[in-house]
Parts: sequence; structure tokens; C-alpha cells
Amino acid sequence: MAPTLHSLGHVALRTPDLETSMEFFHDGIGLEEVERIDGTVYLRTPDEFDHHSLSLTERDSAGVDHIGWQTADSESVAGFADKLESEGIDVTWVEAGTEPGQGEAIRFSTPTGHRFECYYEMEKPDVTPDRRSKLKNKPYAATNTNPIAPHHIEHVQIWDDDAHALANWMCEHLDFRVQELYDKTDGSRWGTWVSANGVKIEAAIIQNNPDDPPASLNHVAYKVDSGDDLFDAADAMQEREISTDGFGQHSVSRGKFLYARDPVSDHTIEFNAGGYLVFDPEWEPIEWQETDLKNRQWIGRIADGVNVPY
Amino acid sequence: MAPTLHSLGHVALRTPDLETSMEFFHDGIGLEEVERIDGTVYLRTPDEFDHHSLSLTERDSAGVDHIGWQTADSESVAGFADKLESEGIDVTWVEAGTEPGQGEAIRFSTPTGHRFECYYEMEKPDVTPDRRSKLKNKPYAATNTNPIAPHHIEHVQIWDDDAHALANWMCEHLDFRVQELYDKTDGSRWGTWVSANGVKIEAAIIQNNPDDPPASLNHVAYKVDSGDDLFDAADAMQEREISTDGFGQHSVSRGKFLYARDPVSDHTIEFNAGGYLVFDPEWEPIEWQETDLKNRQWIGRIADGVNVPY
Amino acid sequence: MAPTLHSLGHVALRTPDLETSMEFFHDGIGLEEVERIDGTVYLRTPDEFDHHSLSLTERDSAGVDHIGWQTADSESVAGFADKLESEGIDVTWVEAGTEPGQGEAIRFSTPTGHRFECYYEMEKPDVTPDRRSKLKNKPYAATNTNPIAPHHIEHVQIWDDDAHALANWMCEHLDFRVQELYDKTDGSRWGTWVSANGVKIEAAIIQNNPDDPPASLNHVAYKVDSGDDLFDAADAMQEREISTDGFGQHSVSRGKFLYARDPVSDHTIEFNAGGYLVFDPEWEPIEWQETDLKNRQWIGRIADGVNVPY
Amino acid sequence: MAPTLHSLGHVALRTPDLETSMEFFHDGIGLEEVERIDGTVYLRTPDEFDHHSLSLTERDSAGVDHIGWQTADSESVAGFADKLESEGIDVTWVEAGTEPGQGEAIRFSTPTGHRFECYYEMEKPDVTPDRRSKLKNKPYAATNTNPIAPHHIEHVQIWDDDAHALANWMCEHLDFRVQELYDKTDGSRWGTWVSANGVKIEAAIIQNNPDDPPASLNHVAYKVDSGDDLFDAADAMQEREISTDGFGQHSVSRGKFLYARDPVSDHTIEFNAGGYLVFDPEWEPIEWQETDLKNRQWIGRIADGVNVPY
Repeated sequence: MAPTLHSLGHVALRTPDLETSMEFFHDGIGLEEVERIDGTVYLRTPDEFDHHSLSLTERDSAGVDHIGWQTADSESVAGFADKLESEGIDVTWVEAGTEPGQGEAIRFSTPTGHRFECYYEMEKPDVTPDRRSKLKNKPYAATNTNPIAPHHIEHVQIWDDDAHALANWMCEHLDFRVQELYDKTDGSRWGTWVSANGVKIEAAIIQNNPDDPPASLNHVAYKVDSGDDLFDAADAMQEREISTDGFGQHSVSRGKFLYARDPVSDHTIEFNAGGYLVFDPEWEPIEWQETDLKNRQWIGRIADGVNVPY
Repeated sequence: MAPTLHSLGHVALRTPDLETSMEFFHDGIGLEEVERIDGTVYLRTPDEFDHHSLSLTERDSAGVDHIGWQTADSESVAGFADKLESEGIDVTWVEAGTEPGQGEAIRFSTPTGHRFECYYEMEKPDVTPDRRSKLKNKPYAATNTNPIAPHHIEHVQIWDDDAHALANWMCEHLDFRVQELYDKTDGSRWGTWVSANGVKIEAAIIQNNPDDPPASLNHVAYKVDSGDDLFDAADAMQEREISTDGFGQHSVSRGKFLYARDPVSDHTIEFNAGGYLVFDPEWEPIEWQETDLKNRQWIGRIADGVNVPY
Repeated sequence: MAPTLHSLGHVALRTPDLETSMEFFHDGIGLEEVERIDGTVYLRTPDEFDHHSLSLTERDSAGVDHIGWQTADSESVAGFADKLESEGIDVTWVEAGTEPGQGEAIRFSTPTGHRFECYYEMEKPDVTPDRRSKLKNKPYAATNTNPIAPHHIEHVQIWDDDAHALANWMCEHLDFRVQELYDKTDGSRWGTWVSANGVKIEAAIIQNNPDDPPASLNHVAYKVDSGDDLFDAADAMQEREISTDGFGQHSVSRGKFLYARDPVSDHTIEFNAGGYLVFDPEWEPIEWQETDLKNRQWIGRIADGVNVPY
Repeated sequence: MAPTLHSLGHVALRTPDLETSMEFFHDGIGLEEVERIDGTVYLRTPDEFDHHSLSLTERDSAGVDHIGWQTADSESVAGFADKLESEGIDVTWVEAGTEPGQGEAIRFSTPTGHRFECYYEMEKPDVTPDRRSKLKNKPYAATNTNPIAPHHIEHVQIWDDDAHALANWMCEHLDFRVQELYDKTDGSRWGTWVSANGVKIEAAIIQNNPDDPPASLNHVAYKVDSGDDLFDAADAMQEREISTDGFGQHSVSRGKFLYARDPVSDHTIEFNAGGYLVFDPEWEPIEWQETDLKNRQWIGRIADGVNVPY
């Protein structure tokens, strides 16, 4: 049986200044600290049971260590290893527990150099009593936490020298499905929005600008409830003098957005609201032509000179 | 390969007065009329691409014709037929097109008499230009429609003489997965909340009260955005003198709710907001004991003498 | 020129346990502590510039010391003193600074014993830098405060042995204006909703139940933004195991409500959203008859056995 | 006794194409048509009892006929006439009923040419049964109306060749009070935000750009509930292909905003949410320096090349 992905799991980030980045990710964004070990902090939202959806490691420079995808079953980890190696792709095995909370995993690179990880097992650590929710279906209480704390990791946006080729590669090798796509008037594919589980967009794959690095992570999106939550998040960012870019709603994905940027690492978090869920095994990709839209924003517009297209 | 369900698809209801029921379902709830043929109206939300998520047929008395479940692939329809028949369950085949927009399907009864349908194919009819959204990923524009029009069908709540047995039957025969459960202090299982796709609760299976019929549909839930949408929906119902029961948030599922009832058929629609999504292939069912909760409502409380537990 | 009231200013409450009450009013409701002196804590919302809108004093038993009304100008304090004394009402002068932050004031009782205060001057103390908003038109930043912190004191609800007489007395002696009223089928006036400034309801004057004390404060209402804020406030109360009563929207005033009760003092705070503002010098009181309404709640209903009618 | 203003009442606008403008103001913005007489349509929101808050008259070109201010009492109309004439300002009397629903009024111009009207009496016409709310304190039901229909007229923004002088003139002659002000680094007063009733900002008086006409109306603001209502309003505008400019929250006034423009008349409506109310007879104007703010938007930013500063 073919190996299968289940969903976006986590992102492992590097920062030149862990404590200052924690002021952004913990105090500002509202992620909870689950564990701190060997210079890495593991974070999750108040709603996430899994051990972490984001990790921060202090290194000389900021960067992305890997994007972690959870498989649909335990056999799929080895299944993907076999499949990728049979196609000549280098696969590195990571022992269980090397990444705290996580079972055995494989790591590999996409053709232009995005570092991906596939794993199945992830611990669900208990919450200390002072922060635990009275509800059994919610790990942390909201009381006294940051008012804008988001619900769950939603998607990553990755940029690539050949975004069309990367999208095809991810669909072929990792069984992603296309939810939406966007073609420019010159016929080139500018963006592809794909899903592992078919329910929500989990990766936006966007064509680089000419001077960009060959492969990069543009932002990680976390889900909040509403447009009002975006206003509240922006307010909280402003009070902390954290830089934000853009505010509105995309046409592609119908996602409402606010982007906030960690000042020391430049990593960008999207607060994401709205959008839609797909409960349809025969979803037909939404095909946008550049001429369909005056601009890519349905509501509001992005900041001048900042290219945050989705 | 074992046949697999994908998600809740639609509910086929009977009403003694189609036009008055349309005042509730179309004008009040905000469902769009897709097709009207042979005395049946097919309805969907402004966000749904599939042909219908609810149908209404005029008959002498109100009732439920069937609850429709979409399979994960076309082979699973026959796969379920084989599996159910091999266990002695009567299966009726329904030719493609008998239910407009729908491919071939099977119908069968659960042990106490819930009528279920499994199908895979469902047409995605285009929208007439006057109602079509300018967004390609949304069928109908919101402008000029009912302000409370919901997004998509969310779950059904079914009551049963032996709800525990029914939940087990659905997990065993139809591959549902348990998301939450609730046990009473006498050790009996009062409710089980199950999902076909594992992402959201799609059926709440609740123990009957002593004098209830052996198997019934308590309500159909449709998704709205927020608590404020529930207030707006309640306001719209009040202005139409439509009866509502209960307003608040459940502990189980964390769903925020408002119930509204069609005066001629007594069919009940839940406006449902909040809750949470599961993106976890190893979800461990949330196990509630009666003693965990003072009452089952996290916020607000249900109407006196009206048992709408989830 | 006749003395004139401007608006509801503050409520001075007694509690048998100051620290536990602060867990409710400060941690739970989200009021900010401005000053603590001689066993009394002075509190205001993050949006209020005035020194306090609520004070808490530890005494043997819970109770209400007074309800404070700000006059429209400084002369009106003496003006009300003269007017009330000329009608045989005892007036006590309170020197400036006796109540911290406040100028000279008068105190007096309504016929059945509500203790009122009238004052004009109130200091606007600065906020410490760690809590100060970056906005000059907002005292405190929202970041890191309770997510449900309300905006401003909205109204008081007072109960009385003869609510109709009290309403007339307040309109005649203190120049309140009637915004809405409610008459029972036996012709008695059950409730009168009055305003000092004519823009919003500032006092609801409700007829006692037979066994109630002759004059009491039912609750103090603070303003929040939306129905979603009420859900969030209820969630925060539940996580703290604070008792709440009722959730919905009144017909009278159109106010959306949630009531929460301090466990040690039984003082009740209403989180109030919605409603409407009056910008009309010729407002005609809305006259409700008992027969106009099936029940007094437009949305939701109040808790069994708890009489919180507005 | 000095004549006194009570609040902003209405705006009388001209359009070159009444029917197309009604598609914007009635269908798009959601104002209700109260009366149509002699080529003028009178409009109000579903919440407004007064006869109109906006009128549209078909003329050769778009323009502003007058901005109407309601006085605090009937004597103040003649009082203002006397006061203005004694200072050499031309005052024109308008007989009761000339403007439907309205009592006798005066019209006059500010020094640079804004046309103002002062009146006291305004009828409160009943609503036809098909649109009437079941609530006695709300004229129109929301059901089946435009989902974005606002609550009440909130403020006007007027631009002037000498905005500082105009603000002083309005405070001196018409008794407006300053709520906020904004000074540029060159010492000039760029904007003054004033209130007639002291509760909310009712006019923003902004310094012209060099090539602008000497006096103009930039926009009329109507109040909605929340940031989510702004998203919904923007969505409805997009579906109608109505141009919108800007989306976010101002620092001055804390108002959340969305601007939409009638394509045939260029008149701009602001959907306004948030902000704050003043219940303080001793409000001290908030004094902003240009250096206090990186830009004037607290959240989001305005469209390129479009100067909508407040």
C-alpha cells in the first residue's frame, strides 16, 4: 500500500537570539512552552495536544531546519523512505526521541533544497495544573493567556525557483492534492495550494522573485477564530511594537490574514481566519487566471514592497 | 481494500407542507434552492459545491427518509454493499440519478431502524449568474442572501434505544472513528461522537429517553462562523417568529449552538460555531464521565424540558 | 440654572474578603487596580481615564456603600444639595479627597434606602509604563491583560419595593430621563430604564419580589464589544469556576448579557454587549406591555429561579 | 441661554444618477428608503427612528447640499440664527416641511463654504409591517435586509483650506467640543476631531491638500458592530464590484474603518466600528504630535494615493 501523508505537523526554526524570539513566539503570538532541552524550545498552541507545532533553536543565524509532516500510519515513514530512495533521493533516518516527543523519522530535501521531515508518532504531554483547561478536549485554559493565542498550525507558505515543478514533485512523491492554483498571463504557474489531508490548504507553493534564494519558507500560518481576532492580534502586536505586514482577505483560499514578524529572526507568522474546509473526495482544483483578479486581495491590500501573496 | 466513508453528505427529510417548510429552510436558515423535481426540493448552502446537503419532500407526515454518507472512492459503494450483505443486512441499490445529481447508491437500515445511504458521485451544478460569487472558490455570493446563511453541513445527532450498540455498529460496519464519548455514573454509555473523516464530529449518537421512538434524528447541524453569527441567527429567527431552543456552548465538542425548529415538520436545525478540528491520525477519544461536568453545557443552558444534549 | 447629572460614575462595594473578591474583579473581570488605601481598592477598566468606576472595601459583610453619579458641572453638586434639602432630604457632604481621586461630593438616600453620591471632579491618574497603551486615547494596553477586560461601566440595575415611585423620584429630583418602561397586565409598572445623559441606559429600576429587601443593587454592568466577547468571558469564568447566570439578549434595551457572581460577596457583574445608543433630544420612551413579549428575553433565557430581568 | 447643538443629524447629497446611486446606498450600504418626493430619496438605517440621516437628489453633478445638525432644543434654532447673524453671517430660514419630516431650520455657510443646517424637529415615521421589527426599540427587522446594514450615522469628515480656523469657528459659533487633535512637526494643526454631544466624534476637520477645493466633504461614516462586520461589508462590496479604499484601524479615534465609494457620485461611506465613547464632562482633548505615530493607522494601511486619514 502506498505511503500516505496525514497533515502538516510542525516547523523547526533557528534564531540568533532565543530569548528575544520567545518574546515574539510565546508572549506575542501566544504559543505555550512545552519543553526546553539542549538549547531548543518546543512550542504548541493552547488547543494542540501534540508535543509541538514549532521549535526554536539558537544558532549563529536565523533559518529553517525542517518542515515536519505527519504520516497517516506508522508504516508510511519507512514507505516514504523506500519510495524516495528508489528515486535517488537521499534520506536520513532520525531516531525516536532525537526530536523530543517524536518517534522515528526521515529527513530529505526537495530538488531545490526545502528540508522536509516525515514522522508518525508524536507524544501528547499533559499540561501542568495551573494552565490546564477544565475541558477535557482542550489542553490549556485561555484565562490569563495571551488573548490572541491561536488554535492550531494551519499551513506553510514556501517559495521556490520553480514552484510549478516543486508542486508536481510534492504531489508525485508525497501524495499532496491540489486545492487551488494560479496561472499568470504568460502561462507560467505562479502558485499552487496543496493539502495532505484534503480538508484544508497545508502548503502554498509560490514562484520566487528573481533575486530570492532558490528555496525558502515565507511564513507559517496559525488559525484564529475570526476577523475580530485579527484586529485583536494586530492590536497586541502594535502594543509590543512588533512589525506587521498586510491585513485583509485573500481571494485564493478566502483566508483572512495578518502577518507579524519576529524582529530578531525575521520569521513571519500569519494569523489566519476564515477560509473554507473541503469535505469532498472529488474536489476539483480551483483554477485562477491572473486576469480573473484585479489584485490577489479580496479585501484590503498588502504592504507596499512586501510580497506576501497568500 | 476495505470500503471507506469520507464524510456526512446530506439528509433527506419529509414535510407535510413543502412551501411552509421552505420558509424555514430557504428564507429562514438561508439554504439555496438548487433543483425542484417531482415534489422534492434540493438545497445547499452558499458555500457548498455539491448538488445538495438537504432535501425536502412533501408527504402526509414529517419524517426522515435517509441520511446520506459519501464514500472515499467509487469502489467503496459496492464494497459496503458486499460487506453489509455478508453480515445479513438488507441492502437496496439506488440507480444513478434517482436522487438528482447523485451517482449509484445503496440504502440500508441500522439495527434499530435509522435509514442510511452510501454514495460516491455527486454533481456540482453551476450557479445562475445573478447569485454567483465573484470568487471562484465560493458558489454563491452572500450579498442579498440571508445574513445567517451557514457554510456547510456539519453533523447529525441521532437518538437510539441502544446508543452504545449503534455507535459500535457504525464503527464496525462503516468505519467511523470515536472522537468523544460520555458515560453516566451507572456505567452506561449515554453518548458517542463519531467522525467518518476523523477531522470533525459528523454524528452524535445519543441514548433515547424511555418513551422515545427506537431511532430518530434529533437535528442536523450547519456551520456558521462565530458566536456573533449565532446571535444574528437567533435574531433572524425571532423576527420570523420561528421557535428556538437553547443557546450556548457544549462541553462535549466545544460546539457553540442555537437550535431552530421548522414549525410544520418539527425538523430541527442547529446553527453550530466553534468546536475544534482534529488533524491527528492517533486521536485518543475524549472520555467524559457524568461526574466531570456539573451540567453538559459549558456556557448557557438548554431550554427547560427540551432535551438537546449536544 | 437647574443642577444636572452627567452620567453613572462608579459603585462602592463592600466585601467580607477583599483578596478573594480581587480574584473575581481583577483577575476574572479584568479591572485594573489604580490605588489601594485604608483597606479599599479602587478599580477601573483598561479604557477608563477616571480614577475608579468600582471600589471594594473589606467589611464584616458584603453590601453596597453607594452608587456615584457625576454631575454635568461643578455647580451642580451644591445645586443638588440645595434642591434635595429644600425637599426635606438629608444630605451629607463628603470632603474632596475623602474618596481618593474625587472632589467634594454629597451623599443621600432615596426614599426606600438606595445610597447615592453626586460629585463632579474626578482625577485621571496616569498609568505605570509597563501597562500603558501606545495609544494616547487609551490608558492601558490590552496585551497580557485578561482577554475579557471590558471597556466602561455601563449601567446599574437596582431593585425597589416601589420601583415606579423610585423611577419618578429619580426623574424629578435628579433629572433622569426615561428610555424604556415595562408595564404588567395588572397595570403596575414593573421596570423603568433611565438615563442621565440621554445616550444610554444608566439605571434599570425594577420592582422587587415580595420577600426581597426594600432596596438593593442587583448588578453592575460593564461594556464589552460583541457577542463573541460574551462567549469568551463565559469561557474565562468557567475556567475559574466562577458562577454565571444567564446568557442571551434582552428585548428591553436590546442588551446582550452574561452575569458572573463574586463567590464571597455575591456581587454580580453583567458583561453587556450590543444595545443601542440614543442621539435624539426628543426620544420617546419605549413602552412595553407584558403582553408584547412571550418572555423578556429576545435570545436565550435566564437561569431557573434566578431573577435577572434586564 | 446659549443655543446648543445636540448631534449630527443627516447629510443631503446630490448625484447625477439617482437610480445607480440607490444601488450603492440602498442595496449596497443597506439604508432603508423612507420617502421619495420631488426627485429626492430620504434614507435611514434599520435602527434609526428619525425620518432620514441621508438624502439623495438627482442633479447635473454630484455634490453636497448641506450637513444637518440637530439642536438640543427648539429654541436653539432661532438662537443660532440670532448669534450667527449678529456676527455678520448670512442665515437662510427653511420652513417646516420643506425638507420632508423636518421642522423649521436655518442654513448658513462656514467661512470657506461648507453648507450647514440646524434644525430641531424631525418626524419618526412608522415602518411598513413587512419590514417592521418585532422589537419595539428597533424600527426595521434585519431579516432579509442587507447583512451589512449599519446602525446609525456616526460622523462626517470635512476637509478645509484652513482646518484649524474652521475647527475654532465651529467651537466658537456652534459650541462643538474638541475630542482629539493632531499637530504636524511644522506646528500646523492638521486635524481636529470634534463632538456636538461630547459622547462621540461627530466631525473630523482635516487640512486640505494644496490642490483640493477650499471646502469639501470627504466621507460620511455609519456605525457597524465589529471588525467582522467590516469584513462582511467589504465582501458584499466586492461581490457588487463597488470600489473600496482602506481597511484597518486609525490611531486617532481608535475607529476601525472600511471606505466604499458610489461609482456615479464619488460620495464615500465609511463603515465604522470600534472607537470609544466619552462619558466625562471634563474630557481633556487627546493631543497627538506627528512624531507620536509612525503612520496614522494603528492597524492596516490606507490605499496608495488615496488620502483618507481618519
